[in-house]
Amino acid sequence: MSKLKGAVLLGQSGGPTSVINASAAGVFLEALKHDEITEVYGAKNGILGILNEEFYDIRKEELEELRKLKYTPSSAIGSVRYKLMDYDTDDREYAKLLEIFKKYNIRYFFYNGGNDSMDTCHKISEYMKNANWDMRVIGVPKTIDNDLAGMDHTPGFGSAAKFVATAVMELTLDARVYEIDSVTIVEVMGRNAGWLTASAYLGSVSGVKPDLIYLPEKVFDIDQFVNDVSNLIKKQGQVVVVVSEGIQTADGKYVAEYGRDLQKDAFGHASLGGAANVLTKLIKEKTGAKVRPIEFSLVQRSASHIASNVDIEEAFEVGRNAVLAALAGESDKVVSIQRESSNPYVAKYVLMPLEGVANLERTVPLEWIKDDNTGLTKEFIDYALPLIQGETKQDKEHGLPVFAKLKKVLVNKK
Amino acid sequence: MSKLKGAVLLGQSGGPTSVINASAAGVFLEALKHDEITEVYGAKNGILGILNEEFYDIRKEELEELRKLKYTPSSAIGSVRYKLMDYDTDDREYAKLLEIFKKYNIRYFFYNGGNDSMDTCHKISEYMKNANWDMRVIGVPKTIDNDLAGMDHTPGFGSAAKFVATAVMELTLDARVYEIDSVTIVEVMGRNAGWLTASAYLGSVSGVKPDLIYLPEKVFDIDQFVNDVSNLIKKQGQVVVVVSEGIQTADGKYVAEYGRDLQKDAFGHASLGGAANVLTKLIKEKTGAKVRPIEFSLVQRSASHIASNVDIEEAFEVGRNAVLAALAGESDKVVSIQRESSNPYVAKYVLMPLEGVANLERTVPLEWIKDDNTGLTKEFIDYALPLIQGETKQDKEHGLPVFAKLKKVLVNKK
Repeated sequence: MSKLKGAVLLGQSGGPTSVINASAAGVFLEALKHDEITEVYGAKNGILGILNEEFYDIRKEELEELRKLKYTPSSAIGSVRYKLMDYDTDDREYAKLLEIFKKYNIRYFFYNGGNDSMDTCHKISEYMKNANWDMRVIGVPKTIDNDLAGMDHTPGFGSAAKFVATAVMELTLDARVYEIDSVTIVEVMGRNAGWLTASAYLGSVSGVKPDLIYLPEKVFDIDQFVNDVSNLIKKQGQVVVVVSEGIQTADGKYVAEYGRDLQKDAFGHASLGGAANVLTKLIKEKTGAKVRPIEFSLVQRSASHIASNVDIEEAFEVGRNAVLAALAGESDKVVSIQRESSNPYVAKYVLMPLEGVANLERTVPLEWIKDDNTGLTKEFIDYALPLIQGETKQDKEHGLPVFAKLKKVLVNKK
Repeated sequence: MSKLKGAVLLGQSGGPTSVINASAAGVFLEALKHDEITEVYGAKNGILGILNEEFYDIRKEELEELRKLKYTPSSAIGSVRYKLMDYDTDDREYAKLLEIFKKYNIRYFFYNGGNDSMDTCHKISEYMKNANWDMRVIGVPKTIDNDLAGMDHTPGFGSAAKFVATAVMELTLDARVYEIDSVTIVEVMGRNAGWLTASAYLGSVSGVKPDLIYLPEKVFDIDQFVNDVSNLIKKQGQVVVVVSEGIQTADGKYVAEYGRDLQKDAFGHASLGGAANVLTKLIKEKTGAKVRPIEFSLVQRSASHIASNVDIEEAFEVGRNAVLAALAGESDKVVSIQRESSNPYVAKYVLMPLEGVANLERTVPLEWIKDDNTGLTKEFIDYALPLIQGETKQDKEHGLPVFAKLKKVLVNKK
């Protein structure tokens, strides 16, 4: 295959993770090594920045700072929640993208995101192919939700899981200091997939675990919940409960909806949060116990200080492998992590068609969830535990984390 | 001075911190070294456990596990919120304490807590002295609020401050990823003292800081707040605000209290949230921006994985020094940390009369708070930064923290 000379463009999309910038570091640092790559660009705020021709010139950055991206949370070049229309319905934005890709000779496009972003990536790939613009499009997966189809797990999940597991262990000890009836209800992110909520059970390997865990994969039975919590209060006084933000009752209504109106985000998803508040009110009324809701909120996706080193390194390698795959002529693919064994943990990076990932969701197998909602089976622990191993090598200064400082020099518009 | 032979008793009181058990480790490990100390007891749930004669026999614990207490959050022997009456009003509980102290020959009593606990400690000391029961009573300070009078700072504060500073840095990056108008409102503990809220500004030494910080020491002006946030939205799009849970308007009403009214008006039921929730609703209505409240809740006092090593070691030393002081004949005192210099940071442990601490609150000097609420002055940074230095030496297993496992063997009641 003849070498394709041109620019690399990376976009970050959707909610950030602790390690999405590690993937950016993998893409940038690898791209800077190859002669056929003429320029290395980072799109400001994903697709939006491409449509606006706002590209950061990554060649202007210090290598040292790009390396620090491995340990910097949030989306360093800015993210976006923006869904392209089907080009069969309206191809104006695609035509604009094509024009811009040509103008800047962008031949390598990497898009780092979740389900919706892989869909965007696939559509762009198809459109450019049909338009005969020779380019390589590779998806770089990320999501703390761990719900991308076809792959063992997703960069971002391990670090969020390590925070959730650790913080729930700490809170479980804290919740039991007073000899009074009390219920602590912790709410974890994960709209339709309960991987992150399930991670609250990982402390069980050290004997520290919450009492009840509710994943969105199972119908949430309010009466049963009140009953189970009440019985535990009677039995042991202090109760720790972990719920997914996405738990729903049998009629398909989010528990969070019982408390407030839902706002829709740009992708049409309900903006969740609030299940713990609703359940707090309920349990207070029904039991008279002291009840405290705790939402991990954005902390769970940005807690880089407790990122998993396995996750950091995998996120980096996924980005690096995306560049290598594109240089090898691959396109319309996503870099996927496939596990070879759990003990010892061995994984490899393989390419999958983007089409097999886009818009599909991978959820926790129902048989991994204990019937009485007291936790997960050994299968889940064997699956998740390897992903939270190792401590971050994040530098500290003044006792605080050191983040990458990018110059963010915008390329002159052509 | 002749040696006083008898048992040591430690009680933990009030809200836990990441390092309250480090002080317990200091007390226990030191007490176990001395011949005149016949027994080492830990009161189950503080004063309550003493009144119930529920004592853990610390001699039955493995030294290795006692050492791990340095890195174990929460109150390992159980805590309580219980205020003794004045003995002039009602001395029945004091008489019972005296009877129990005599029965178990308790000659050394250490009470680990905040303002109220120092008050309890002082009352017990006075009563036992008047009753001619020869015993030594020493207060061991702790509180994430850092509001104990007369001392430079309090064990527990540094670790909570390190979590708050780090998490706010991470959130500040996360809050700026989308190019949409958004406001993130972080709520930090500290009802009357803003030390912990102020710590959200420490990331400024690395150039990462929130936009506005509101401490309870200053009157909270709602109109000015809406105005300042609105202006920042116009100027920069994304705004990060940190507020103390205890901010009050000029009439002395907690901002959190407005929520109860607002919620009652709107939905007819009681509010569950605090100041951040109230301000979120307000800013949404006034600006139309996307607003997200984040409460650090119990995570800030239990996040042992990011405890400050300076704080851990000081908490341990405060406990150890309490035992040494008591053995040297001191009583009715509290072990206080006094700073000798900030750069390099040098502190020493000195004894103060309990009376000078009990029920007094030390707040952030008003002159350290910037007039426009954009942060704190250099004086605050010089004060707080040394206290968050150093990483915890907490062991990890399976990628998760290792906590002390105590046998908690109760002494047979006499």
